[in-house]
Order: sequence, then C-alpha cells, then structure tokens
Amino acid sequence: MHGGTADTPASDPSPAARSDRETRNLGSANAPRDVPRGGRAPLAPHPDRLLPPEPTQRGIARRLYDSVRDLPVISPHGHVEARLLADDEPFTDPASLLVTPDHYVTRLLHAHGLTMNELGVRDSDGAEQAAPREVWRAFCEHWHLFLGTASRQWIEAELHDVLGVTVQPSAATADELFDELTERLSLPEFRPRALYESFGIEALATTDDPADDLAHHRALTEDPSWSGRVVPTFRPDRYLDASTPDWPAALDALAEASGIDTGDYTGFVRALENRREYFRAHGATATDHSAPDARTAFLDGDEAQRLFRRVHSGTGSDDDARLLSQQLLGEMARMSSEDGMVMALHTGVRRGHHPETLRRFGPDTGHDIPLQAEFTGALQPMLERFGTNPRFQTVVFTLDETVFSRELAPLAGFYPSVYLGAPWWFLDAPRAMHRFRDAVTETAGFYRNAGFIDDTRGFCSIPARHDTARRVDAAHLSGLVAEHLIDEDDAARVIHDLHDRQPRAAFRL
Amino acid sequence: MHGGTADTPASDPSPAARSDRETRNLGSANAPRDVPRGGRAPLAPHPDRLLPPEPTQRGIARRLYDSVRDLPVISPHGHVEARLLADDEPFTDPASLLVTPDHYVTRLLHAHGLTMNELGVRDSDGAEQAAPREVWRAFCEHWHLFLGTASRQWIEAELHDVLGVTVQPSAATADELFDELTERLSLPEFRPRALYESFGIEALATTDDPADDLAHHRALTEDPSWSGRVVPTFRPDRYLDASTPDWPAALDALAEASGIDTGDYTGFVRALENRREYFRAHGATATDHSAPDARTAFLDGDEAQRLFRRVHSGTGSDDDARLLSQQLLGEMARMSSEDGMVMALHTGVRRGHHPETLRRFGPDTGHDIPLQAEFTGALQPMLERFGTNPRFQTVVFTLDETVFSRELAPLAGFYPSVYLGAPWWFLDAPRAMHRFRDAVTETAGFYRNAGFIDDTRGFCSIPARHDTARRVDAAHLSGLVAEHLIDEDDAARVIHDLHDRQPRAAFRL
Amino acid sequence: MHGGTADTPASDPSPAARSDRETRNLGSANAPRDVPRGGRAPLAPHPDRLLPPEPTQRGIARRLYDSVRDLPVISPHGHVEARLLADDEPFTDPASLLVTPDHYVTRLLHAHGLTMNELGVRDSDGAEQAAPREVWRAFCEHWHLFLGTASRQWIEAELHDVLGVTVQPSAATADELFDELTERLSLPEFRPRALYESFGIEALATTDDPADDLAHHRALTEDPSWSGRVVPTFRPDRYLDASTPDWPAALDALAEASGIDTGDYTGFVRALENRREYFRAHGATATDHSAPDARTAFLDGDEAQRLFRRVHSGTGSDDDARLLSQQLLGEMARMSSEDGMVMALHTGVRRGHHPETLRRFGPDTGHDIPLQAEFTGALQPMLERFGTNPRFQTVVFTLDETVFSRELAPLAGFYPSVYLGAPWWFLDAPRAMHRFRDAVTETAGFYRNAGFIDDTRGFCSIPARHDTARRVDAAHLSGLVAEHLIDEDDAARVIHDLHDRQPRAAFRL
Repeated sequence: MHGGTADTPASDPSPAARSDRETRNLGSANAPRDVPRGGRAPLAPHPDRLLPPEPTQRGIARRLYDSVRDLPVISPHGHVEARLLADDEPFTDPASLLVTPDHYVTRLLHAHGLTMNELGVRDSDGAEQAAPREVWRAFCEHWHLFLGTASRQWIEAELHDVLGVTVQPSAATADELFDELTERLSLPEFRPRALYESFGIEALATTDDPADDLAHHRALTEDPSWSGRVVPTFRPDRYLDASTPDWPAALDALAEASGIDTGDYTGFVRALENRREYFRAHGATATDHSAPDARTAFLDGDEAQRLFRRVHSGTGSDDDARLLSQQLLGEMARMSSEDGMVMALHTGVRRGHHPETLRRFGPDTGHDIPLQAEFTGALQPMLERFGTNPRFQTVVFTLDETVFSRELAPLAGFYPSVYLGAPWWFLDAPRAMHRFRDAVTETAGFYRNAGFIDDTRGFCSIPARHDTARRVDAAHLSGLVAEHLIDEDDAARVIHDLHDRQPRAAFRL
Repeated sequence: MHGGTADTPASDPSPAARSDRETRNLGSANAPRDVPRGGRAPLAPHPDRLLPPEPTQRGIARRLYDSVRDLPVISPHGHVEARLLADDEPFTDPASLLVTPDHYVTRLLHAHGLTMNELGVRDSDGAEQAAPREVWRAFCEHWHLFLGTASRQWIEAELHDVLGVTVQPSAATADELFDELTERLSLPEFRPRALYESFGIEALATTDDPADDLAHHRALTEDPSWSGRVVPTFRPDRYLDASTPDWPAALDALAEASGIDTGDYTGFVRALENRREYFRAHGATATDHSAPDARTAFLDGDEAQRLFRRVHSGTGSDDDARLLSQQLLGEMARMSSEDGMVMALHTGVRRGHHPETLRRFGPDTGHDIPLQAEFTGALQPMLERFGTNPRFQTVVFTLDETVFSRELAPLAGFYPSVYLGAPWWFLDAPRAMHRFRDAVTETAGFYRNAGFIDDTRGFCSIPARHDTARRVDAAHLSGLVAEHLIDEDDAARVIHDLHDRQPRAAFRL
Repeated sequence: MHGGTADTPASDPSPAARSDRETRNLGSANAPRDVPRGGRAPLAPHPDRLLPPEPTQRGIARRLYDSVRDLPVISPHGHVEARLLADDEPFTDPASLLVTPDHYVTRLLHAHGLTMNELGVRDSDGAEQAAPREVWRAFCEHWHLFLGTASRQWIEAELHDVLGVTVQPSAATADELFDELTERLSLPEFRPRALYESFGIEALATTDDPADDLAHHRALTEDPSWSGRVVPTFRPDRYLDASTPDWPAALDALAEASGIDTGDYTGFVRALENRREYFRAHGATATDHSAPDARTAFLDGDEAQRLFRRVHSGTGSDDDARLLSQQLLGEMARMSSEDGMVMALHTGVRRGHHPETLRRFGPDTGHDIPLQAEFTGALQPMLERFGTNPRFQTVVFTLDETVFSRELAPLAGFYPSVYLGAPWWFLDAPRAMHRFRDAVTETAGFYRNAGFIDDTRGFCSIPARHDTARRVDAAHLSGLVAEHLIDEDDAARVIHDLHDRQPRAAFRL
C-alpha cells in the first residue's frame, strides 16, 4: 500500500513545501501540515460505526441502537445560546459554523503550527484574521490530523447527516465544499429553528450569567410560533470566585440585576437567591459550577460577614479569598437544598494555561488543561449536610478519569443526592465513554448516571454527539449481553432510560 | 421493543406513584424506585457467562474455566465469623441472609432513596426497622437497579446455584420467593456446615480482634465431627490507631487478654507479640491491617517509649499519635519478619463518610469511600528493612487502581516479599479484575499475585465470588492465548496456580 | 488437563525441593522457583501474535502490520553504547547477552528469590557471581515466571527471529541452548555491525554524558566501512541535579571537557552550551532528562548567580539545591529554544528504592519505582515561555499512565512544541500501549505522537521491540477500522507515519 521507503516516505513534504515552512515555523517543520492529502474520497459514515466488530455482538448492538436512535434529544447542559434560536438568523459559512468557534478543532490545528489568526479567531492585538474561505481551506488541508479524534466523528456526522455532504474535506475539495455549504446554509431548512426541529430536540439548557435578563429565553417562550423548550442554567462562577480582579465588578453587576445591595454578605447572598428565583421563573432547573476543587465551607453568619468584608475591602489574604469562594459554593449547596435546583459541579482544570494566547484570543481557546481531582474529602462537608436531603441534588463531572471508580461511583452508590456526570470535555469520546461505564457500573449500576450531556458550543454537533453516545452505549451494553451478564430486554430498557429518564431525573427537567 | 415516546417513557412512574413519592422523598423523586418491573422472568445464569463472545476465544476460555471450576476454594481473607460454623444454626430468611448484612446491597438501595430502616439495619436511635419480609419486598422491587453490578452477578449465582431459585426477584415474585427461601433455609443441607462442605471450601480465614479468645475456632478444631479448616487472622487496627478516643480502652482489653501490662511501650509491644503467638497457635498465618497509608516508622526504643508516653498520657499532639501509629505498624512488620506471619495491608479509605449514618447505623454501612493511594514512598522504610528478608512477606491491597501499574507491579516485580493483592472491595468485579490483570501482568507476570480473596461477609456468596474470579481469569487468559502470547497449556497451568498455589503461597496457608 | 487436587497440586514442589528451599530462602518458600517445568516445548512465535482474534479484524490488522513490518528501524532513544558498534566484538554467551545486563529480567527473577549474584551481576562487596552457564540455567528454569510479561515476548522473538532458536528455554534445554548460542554468537553474522544491518536500523541514538568525548561515535563516522547512523544524545542529569554529593565532581568533569571554568553560574551555563554544541557537531539532535518532576525555574542572572554560589559553596539549603536544579532545567529549555535540540523529558521515579541493592549492585538493577506525576502545573512556566516558539520542541514521557488522558494529550493537543512520548519503561508492553492509544488519540489524534522508542540496553531486543510496537499499532488501528471509525487506507497511512515520519519529526532526526 505504501511504496515509500525511508528515503522517500509516503507522507514527506515536497522540498518546496519544506523551504516554505522553514522560513516561517520551525516548530511544525516536521509536522505533516503541508502534506497533500486525499483527493475526492467519499464521505459516507458507516451505518454500523462505533458498533463492535464481532458479528453476534454487533447484531445485539444494532438492535439496541435502533431502539433509541430516534428518541428525542434531551440536552441538559451545553453552550448554545438562546439568542441563536430567538433570532433564527441563518449560519453564514462552514468555517464560522464548524471551525472558528470550536476550540476542540482550533486547538489541534494550533498544535500543528497554525495560528489562531489563520483560524479566524479574533485577536485583541488587532492582527488580521483569515477570511472564512481561508480558514475553511486550512481546515480541509489538515483534516487527516483529526483521524481518531472525537471531533472527526462529530464533524463527519454533521457534514453528512445534517449538511448533506458526501465528499471528505481535503485540499482538493475545500473550495467546492465552501461554496456548496455556504449556499445550503442560506436555505430556510438550515436555519436554527428548523434544525432544532429536525434534530428532535425536546429540551435544551443554555448556560447563563446570573445577571442576564434572559430576554432571549423570554422571547422564545412568548413567541407563539415557537414550541421548543430552551431553559437557562444559572452559572455564577464569576460571582463566587473572590480571588479574581473582576470580582468587585461582578458584585456590581449582580446588584444592578437584582436591585439588592451586594456590599455586604447578607445582601450578596440575597441577591444570588433573587437571581436563582428569577432563573427558576424562566424555567431553569439547574445551576452549573466550575470550581478549582469541590470543597465547600459553612461558616456561621458573623464569621462569613467578616470574611466577606476583608475580601471585599481588599484587605483579605489569598487564603481569605479562597475560603470565601468555598463559603459561597457552600451557600449554593444550601440554596439548592431549599429551592431544589440541581447543582452541576465540575472541577480541576487550569484555565488559560498559555497566558499570551489568553490575552490575545480570550478564554476557551483550547488551553484549559486538566488537573488531578479529589472528591472524597472535598465533597464531604457538603454531603454531610445535604447528602441525604431529598430536595438536594448534585451532578458531579470530572476531567480526571481516576476518580470514576475510586471516588465518584462509591459516592453515587451511597448518597441519593449524587448523580454521576457523564464523561465530559476531553472525555466525551467513544473510548473514554467505554472506560467510564467500565469504571462505574460495577459499583453504582446504571441508574445513578445522569445520562449524556453534549456540552457543546456547536449547535449542529448536538445530534452527532447524542448519536455517538447512543452508539457507544449500545456497543457497551451489547458486550454485557454477549457475555450473558444482562439479558437483551434489560439492556434495551437500560439504554432507553440512559437517554431519556436519567437526564430528566438527574437535572429535574 | 420500547414503544414509549418522550411523553410517556417506558419507565416513567405513574402519576399516583409520583405523588406518593413526592410526599416522602424528593431526592429520589425521579429515581426509578417505584417503577413496576418484571413479572416472572426466569433466573437462569448462562453457563458461559463472563466468557468472551468471540467463538474461538470462548472455546479456549471455556476449557480453561472447566479446568478450575471444581478446584477447592481457598479463602485467605474474609469476614465470615467462626461462630457461624461453630454454632451451625440455620439461616432464617432471605432478607437476613442476602440483604440487610450486605453493605454492597444496602448502600445502592440507599442511593435510590430507601432508608437503612427500610432495609432492616438496626438503628441506634431506636426507630423501628422493617421486618424481613418487608426488606425482601423492597429488595425485589428494586432488583433492576443492580443491573451491571457485581452484586447482581453474585446474588443471581447464590439464588440459583446455592438456593435453587429459578425466577428473578421482582415485585411480583417477592412473597413467593420469601416463603420458598425461608422454608428451604430451614433444611439440614442449608445449614452453614453443610454448605461449607458443598461449597468445596478447603481453608477459610476469618478476621479477628487480637483480644478475641478464639473460642469458636477452638470449638471447631476440637469438634471431631468437623473436618474443615477455619483459621483466625490477627487484625490489630484498633490497637495501632493511637489517634482514636477508643485507643486507651483497646490497650486495656489487650492487657487483659495477654496478661501483660500495656501501660508502657515495651509491655504494649510484648502484649501484641503474645497475642500473635496465641493466634499462630490457633492456626493463624496472617495479620491484616487497614491503615490510613502504608507508612511505617522505626524509632529506637527510647524514642518510641517517650512517644508512647506522650500519646498515652494525652499530652501528645496529633502528629505524635500519627507517628506512633506508624511506629506500631513498623513493629508489626518487624514481628512478621520474625514470626513469619504474612502482613496483609490495605490503605486509603475514608471510613464513615456520612457521620449521621455512622452514628445511627454503625460502621460498614456503605459509606467508606476510597482515597488516592501512594505506596512507592510509603512502603520504602519497611521494604528497606525487610524487603529481602526471607521470613517477611506482605500482600498489598488497594482501592486506587492507579497504583497497580505505577507502583504495585514494579514493587512486586523486584521484592520477593511483596505479593500483589487481588482487586478488592469496589474492585472485585469482572471488568475491574480484567483491568487489574492488564495493569500488572506485563510488569510482574502471574506469579507475584496473591490469587483471589473473597473478602465477604456473606457466607453464601463465597462460591459465587470464587466462581466469578475463575471465569474472569479464564476469559482473560483466553485473550492471551487467542492473541498467541501464551499457549493454552501454559494458560491452563497459570489459571490453576492462580486459584490454588498462589493464595497458599501468598498467605502461607 | 490438570489432574492435581488440593493435596497434590500440579505445580507443587517435591518435598525434597521444599526442604532445600526452606534452608536457604523462606521468602520464596512457596514461590514456584523449584518447579520442574517444560521439557522440550517448541519455540515458534505465531506469525499473527498480538493481532486481535476476531477474524475480520485480524485480517485488517495483518494487512496493516504487513505494510510496516519491513520499514527501517528508527531508534531515537535507547541505551545501546556506540562502543558496541565501534568495537564490533562478538557477544560471548546468552546469559551475558540476554540476562545479566537486562534489569527487566533480573528484577523479576530477584522477586522470585534469586539473588543478584546468582544472576551474574557484579557485587561491589566482592561476593562471587555465578558463571554465565549457571546464570543461563537459572534463567531457563524460571522461564515460566515471565509468562504474560513484555520481556517474554521480546526474548522469544530475539531467540527465534534473531538467534534461530526453536525450543523453549527450560531446565531440560538450558545446557544445549547455552552451547548452541555461545557457538552461534561467535559467527561473523552475529557481530554487532552485521546485526545492525540485518535489523534494518536506519538511525540509532545513544545516551551519553556531556563530558564524553564521543570517540566511539567519531570512530564510526570516520570508518569508511561503516554506513550506519549512530548519533549521541546529550544527557546532563548529573550536572543538573545540584542535590547530590556528586554534583561538585560533575562540575569539574564538565570544566575539563569544555575547557571553561564552571565555578560560577555564567561559566557553568556556558560550559553546558559548549558541550551541546559539541554534541550537535557529532550529530546529536536531542537532549534527554530524567528529573524528579517537570518543573523549571527562570530566575534572572543575578539571582541565579547568587543561588549557584550558595549551593556550590555548600551553604545552600535543600530548597536551594532543588531550585537550582529547576533553574538549570529551565536553562536547558532556553538552550533548546535557541539551538533546536529536542528536549526529551521524563519524570517521576524513585531511583534506588532498595538501598542495599543499590550499594552492592549499582544503579539500574530493577528497583527504580514510579511515582505519581503531574505535568499541567509543572510544565507551565516552560511552556509559557517556549510553548509556541518554533525552534523549541519537547517530547514528554511518563511512568504514570493517569496523565496520558488528563494532562499530556490536552497539552500536546494545543502546544505545537509538545510531542507525546510513547509509553515507556514499565509501560512499553502491548496492553499498556493499547491503553496509551485509547487514552490520547481521541484528544490529540495520531500526529502529536513521537512514535515508538525502544529505550533498550539490549541490542538484540531492538527488532523485537519495534516489531511488537508495529503489531500493537496494527491491532489497535484494526479496531478503529473494524468499528468504521477510520477507513483502512487512512489507517495504513497512520501506521506508516507512526513508525517513520513521527519519530523523525519528534526527534528532528
């Protein structure tokens, strides 16, 4: 298949390409970025993709998958904005849809020597960013770099199943695909609301700032021509993290949104309660928290007030700021135990690992890097107080797989309030999903799982991601059936519940 | 298979059930606890369960499994009490046998909103506990929650293979099963000694307090009608943990049992030696230790004496108490290096994570949650001293899988005294066992393993657990044979040794 | 197959063997070291070994493997010495070739109670070491202990494919194999240079001390009869680790080699630069670093000078020494960003875990034990400075698998300078390799991998190790093809690149 020898490897760049490279980026000198790849290979995702190869097991998996393939999509956590559906403006072009805003995609291209500017990301230094067609070409030329990644699966499915593309992206097909997709995206059936319908979405949760007036959510609810369900999620990170320079400004914004003075602890807490109430009145069922770790504090009122004053006045130490953040996370748990909003909690990532990229291109640009996680000790103070409280419920996510079997499954296997969050972010890919099930099921069964969340910023990736999760669960369960650990009827019930009952139950949707 | 739509999901509770739930337990409001499940589905564990689906590989696995299926059971570590066999009283009913005392079972039902009282656990607050029939009903109604868990495999095997049940537990079958099993358990062939024989147990180690007089062990040994082998294990945790309020009382108990004054360090150490000697005289070959971590200290005599005095007199710090505990664990290692008792060591769990449950229902009620483990540094002081000492031997267990490939296999692959303990507690389940073999074998081979331990409190689960382990090992080895890494004759020898030679060697049984 | 009962287990030692054992080594009393094993079982590695059993998938795997089986070997990191090829002396006997110098082999035999002396390792206490024939016998008698290990795969392949052996090592065959191999090794075609040719090695990197004059490398380059490529690697560990008593002597050696006074910081840094330049002039493309962790420091010149003086004069604290080591590692990164040498970095092992063995038998004797690793925070200061610098490049290795998915794949998936090192040391075995691919590919694709390194001290194991890696990659990719995640043409391209382009690119070879 490969006639290449060591002297002329199949995938070596041409000398011309090499010299061009060398003048601009030695770091990627040897990376395959300039390799001419593919011509017009067909894009035809296999109907049995992700299902196990052994014939008997595949048969079981196919039946299980078929039984849930067309279930409605329940998306209890993600980053699509309500504005998208409220405005219902057409998408403009494939680069702006699939490449530039997706940091799963841009980070890997960046790792192969492309700059954020070449990928169309806005640069606060003012350097020009590439036009969408250029971005799309760059993406298509480097498509093979995504082989084996979750992104490749999703984008193949989006291109083929949603957008009707039948040819693989490549240098040779980039321009025709750009033109074809740009035209198609202008059609009525590719507008966000039409896609929402065709995706079979039954409920979609957005992620919102507590000071947000939720105008777009309201616009949707009040629009008689709209019958979908888009609910906000209360995400108060910037109000709880008292260690950042932005915290005072956040307090002001909260004061304005709530009409409550946030200048002392009691007022601040009341303002948060006020905004939670506002969110619930607009359909929210959950809060969402990214914290350095899962630790909470429960100081009494006076102590909390004094701590707040120190931090608020700028006289507190770093430890004070950290403790106040833990205290505020504890307040969130307390509020959840009263108002019943589900507390989605994820920890352990170093955000903005490359400061220069953060400065120029902003957050969520692909260099948030996970850290070791610890939950057994960290969650204890919260679970000691609320772990068996029937109104309290939390869904715990991690980027550190080692806690699945060691900590999260045992916790979810005892506390009625703890749901196991799906494998998430870097772990929302087929093999990682299998590892998750293997790690937790033997300890916690299937019914302590929160089901799948897509966590996506890419609206068109929603059906692809849910489809992937359904296929992986079908594959996984088919293994248990083929090994005679559960029978096929039970497996069918389980997979149905995982993609229907469990996310509703976990997020009280 | 599932006709349910999003509006009427197959497994949604009825409105009546819902309102009933809401009044009593919102935490499990959305959990499937009230779902009517199953009618009279047959219970018929497949003869090839746990064996791989690919036909060639399954053939290999089946031959390997058949070659060890009927080997005697060697159980070098567990929590069955000698009294059970000494008294030989019949079991009373299935709930008292299979549900209430098994914290693998009660914890998962608790996670789905059942209370410990509903599960028959004695409540020190005096709240009434459910009668066995009620407990059994609750268990049967929620049987589907165990799908995919190790507990389900074991209980299916116990019900079918030991107790002759041929119908799955369900709401519909609960009462008839209760009656049937209650009657059957009263028959002579279901008494503990008869079961011991029918299980093919060759050696069974109990876990005992150093102050125990081992009267039940002695009764068995002296009973001419009894030919089994039940040996005690020396478990001195409460004497070594100098940080607990119970420690002084433990010292008094030890003094009484040994007839040696434990009021100074030398006496205390001599008292421990005395009780080890007593245990060895009653057949013990091993000690068993649950420590916060594996660290040992080796202070000289005077320093140890002074430390002991500080802690004993209540003037020591927390660090003193910790150091004394490490010193005492070091003494255990030293004693093992002299008397040859095998030191079984397991670390890294937060016991009593939910204090209220601990207070009301006692220890071992399902909320001991694992922590990160570290052995490379922690074991170093002990192995520096005794690691190549031919009388010293230790078997190391962990609840943190990450140390298998990183630390334990490399340690067991160098030190002749270190045996790899089997995957244990939350990890004694099929997929976790496969992960264990994958993690350690390439570094340490098969012959540094201690073989399987069942670690069970449930007498009737012994054959099920050993059978599961044999099946998993057959499945695992069949993979190596099918990939032509080892030949089938070698695999047969290995699986035999894993379930016969290795536990004898590791525990010097 | 096994007629053994509990009383006479198939593999129990004879009573005679037992009593013999007991007198000399109770620690291995129950170990199977004395078990007579095997007679004349054939040694015939299966052509499809390591390929998946399912027939369709095996067909794919076989085609993928065939497409790379005969590719030249690129070995960018290992411990074969240039002297071996420069001198081209014949190997003397199989024990000196395969057993005594291979700490993968000696450590496991040691774990089963054999002493280092019995394995031929030189003892600085002067105790006699066994003769090669005795060592070989000991090895052959215990050959079954290696079942399931990576070492067994490699040695089987070496014996069969390189040395033409067709019978398994065993007590019965030890002497004839020793004689046969000793004779064969004296033949011209088994000399190092002839083997280099027959192994198809295209490039081989050695690991060298910065003060080394590289005379053997030069001798090879200047030898007109030699056409291979053997390049040195700059490994400055002992110069960078300021915490050891040997550090001052290392500085002197460096001063002598460079002709630059290393008595102050500036001179020391210049001397290191000088030796890097020297190494580059002799073909080196990379440096290699084993550090306690990956942390670097970047103090300014004056501060560094003062720190150096404190440590150099012996007045510095332990923290000073550590900080200086981090500063020096930072200098290495800075130099790499200027001279373009690739920085291979591996961390997290406790070397010399058993001090007595270290003292008597030296380093690299099988008791270097891995520790937990952390890279996200530790690498940040270095990557903040050089992470997107096109001349800077690093290949990161770990002994702690947990960082693959959590830290290394996300880092390599963003920074163009970071390549994922292959699974290494204890992890360079088939199942660990599969876990590595599963852990990283979904996040980072295939093209952020550095390809395989053999890291071997055993020259004859080079082809076996590369062949194993190619088989495992073929097996792994065949799974993705069989699950329809990538098509077979793409898989063929990927496996070719993994064993050709990627190591060249990662190590700039």
